[in-house]
Amino acid sequence: MHKSRLAGFIIDCDTNDLDAAAGFWAKVLGAPVQHAADLSKSPYVELNMPAGEPYVEVQKVDHASRVHIDIESDDVDAEVVRLEKLGARRITAIKKWVVLEAPTGQRFCVVPVVSADFAARAHAWNEDK
Amino acid sequence: MHKSRLAGFIIDCDTNDLDAAAGFWAKVLGAPVQHAADLSKSPYVELNMPAGEPYVEVQKVDHASRVHIDIESDDVDAEVVRLEKLGARRITAIKKWVVLEAPTGQRFCVVPVVSADFAARAHAWNEDK
Repeated sequence: MHKSRLAGFIIDCDTNDLDAAAGFWAKVLGAPVQHAADLSKSPYVELNMPAGEPYVEVQKVDHASRVHIDIESDDVDAEVVRLEKLGARRITAIKKWVVLEAPTGQRFCVVPVVSADFAARAHAWNEDK
Repeated sequence: MHKSRLAGFIIDCDTNDLDAAAGFWAKVLGAPVQHAADLSKSPYVELNMPAGEPYVEVQKVDHASRVHIDIESDDVDAEVVRLEKLGARRITAIKKWVVLEAPTGQRFCVVPVVSADFAARAHAWNEDK
């Protein structure tokens, strides 16, 4: 048995000014940026969402801007297998996460557990069923 | 003064089988569909997300599949003005909501209040500042 849940979403921005993009979304959502962008370390800027709400990160990307969903799981590999059985297609693995594509075309990611309340709020999946 | 907050997100699907698309995302998220699709009434199927989490709806669309954010507000017009000042571009109004485009290209919507706990959790914006 493994668990998973919606962890948050990533606002993918095709931009040369990640700080400006993060600043825009921070003001839209009322969720301040956690830090200035430092592309030498990471393409992400996290926003300070209220406790209990999904995380939101603004990412610099080299493809068209979009929004994608992150699923967190205590067993990324098992979750990917579960999602593939549902019809998702595995695209690639990056560091500790896996990029999938839905039958309807949206890309989304499976990532290791991030939320403090994961155990209480996640869905348990029985692979034998 | 008006208020707004992240309400949820819409999974826009370029599909001829909205039930299948909604069923996929329901199983991904562990959030059952609330009802079968009825395109004669609505292009949306709502998923039963846990209380306190953002709402998720699966929508049949005629453009490329994507995910978009919904912002809820007790004053849609004032919120649109606020967002335009941040750099968003107003695209169109549909029924009671307004479609905007971020400087980085993502479309998103401002909708009337949906969440039961809106008043407690929303951000207050002072238009005079």
